[in-house]
Amino acid sequence: MLKLHHCIGARSFRPLWMLEELDVPYALTMHPFPPRVHDEAFLDVNPLGTVPAFSDGEARMTESAAICEYLAWRYPDAGLSVAPGEPAYAAYLNFLHFGEATLTFPQTLVLRYTHFEPPARRQPQVVEDYTRWFLSRLRTLEPLLTQQTYLCGRFTAADISVGYALLLAEHLGLDERFKPAVADYWQRLKTRDGYRRALEAERTAALAQGVSSTPAPATR
Amino acid sequence: MLKLHHCIGARSFRPLWMLEELDVPYALTMHPFPPRVHDEAFLDVNPLGTVPAFSDGEARMTESAAICEYLAWRYPDAGLSVAPGEPAYAAYLNFLHFGEATLTFPQTLVLRYTHFEPPARRQPQVVEDYTRWFLSRLRTLEPLLTQQTYLCGRFTAADISVGYALLLAEHLGLDERFKPAVADYWQRLKTRDGYRRALEAERTAALAQGVSSTPAPATR
Repeated sequence: MLKLHHCIGARSFRPLWMLEELDVPYALTMHPFPPRVHDEAFLDVNPLGTVPAFSDGEARMTESAAICEYLAWRYPDAGLSVAPGEPAYAAYLNFLHFGEATLTFPQTLVLRYTHFEPPARRQPQVVEDYTRWFLSRLRTLEPLLTQQTYLCGRFTAADISVGYALLLAEHLGLDERFKPAVADYWQRLKTRDGYRRALEAERTAALAQGVSSTPAPATR
Repeated sequence: MLKLHHCIGARSFRPLWMLEELDVPYALTMHPFPPRVHDEAFLDVNPLGTVPAFSDGEARMTESAAICEYLAWRYPDAGLSVAPGEPAYAAYLNFLHFGEATLTFPQTLVLRYTHFEPPARRQPQVVEDYTRWFLSRLRTLEPLLTQQTYLCGRFTAADISVGYALLLAEHLGLDERFKPAVADYWQRLKTRDGYRRALEAERTAALAQGVSSTPAPATR
């Protein structure tokens, strides 16, 4: 059985979205954010104390984009992977990493220093530095998405890696500054059944497990 | 021909190290840091203005850990990849991402707000926040590296992803705070021929191309 530990709105939304796109059975455990603070036993599940924590039998993973790549390979019939040797393979690997390392981490600084830290520890300069950082990197997608529906031609796990960064940007109100092709792409992603089912799955599981559904956080 | 654009000490050291481990021919172009500031034409090579910028024929990549994964697949005889289906496949993907997203990005904040920003823009609180962040994540490798020589059993591209984060930590003086198994692991990585040849390759190319060899930076 595939198992996923998740906080609403956190990076663990990536593998949740993958699981719903793949339409495979899984067990979803919800945690309030940050998980390690509310439940010390969670450190036995994931010594990092972060979400996602994912397992597939003996395999254990904690990096959201890596889990998407793994699941895309694990269930090849869904076509969410780009196989080695396909022309888009290099782009696929690149966008899987780009979605997290280049588009998500800078936003976690914005989130942390505007929302999570107490007022005395907020850092407006850092917020400005990394808002600009994020938006300048995001703009580089504009030419590609003017020509293509998805990053690698068809929809793949790479779109989920980048799509989560756009979801986080929407939480932060940065979506108003998307350029037209990125804005259209984000609208397309949000209309997917898999995306909608993932939102519904986290809401339903949070209610059933008595976990507050306040949209949370990519900071860890 | 494989082509790599690189700044001394930057994340592009990952693919450079991979290329030397693989012992394949490549063209190395050195830039002073940050490349986009010193050479606007570099934006034609990589619209992000960052290093690495890597190409293999039509394939273009900009994410250092993704390039390592790509090269490991491209030259399978070297055994630097973990193939889908091998028991360590999930760990391999996870560590490729972990090395960058979890271990490198936090250090770039330390670097930026202690070294690159002018004194008025330095942020000691952010430096402290992300130094602690980095060291707490790094500690989770200790049990594994007490038992294993390399992250996935044998040496793979995942060790290069994590190894670069340790190199950066050494630049920042954080290596004094490594736990014993991580410290030993880092010493092992530094004795590899591929690692030493990569250091020599960047030094030689910087001299030949008239690029200052001041060790630089992972901020982008």
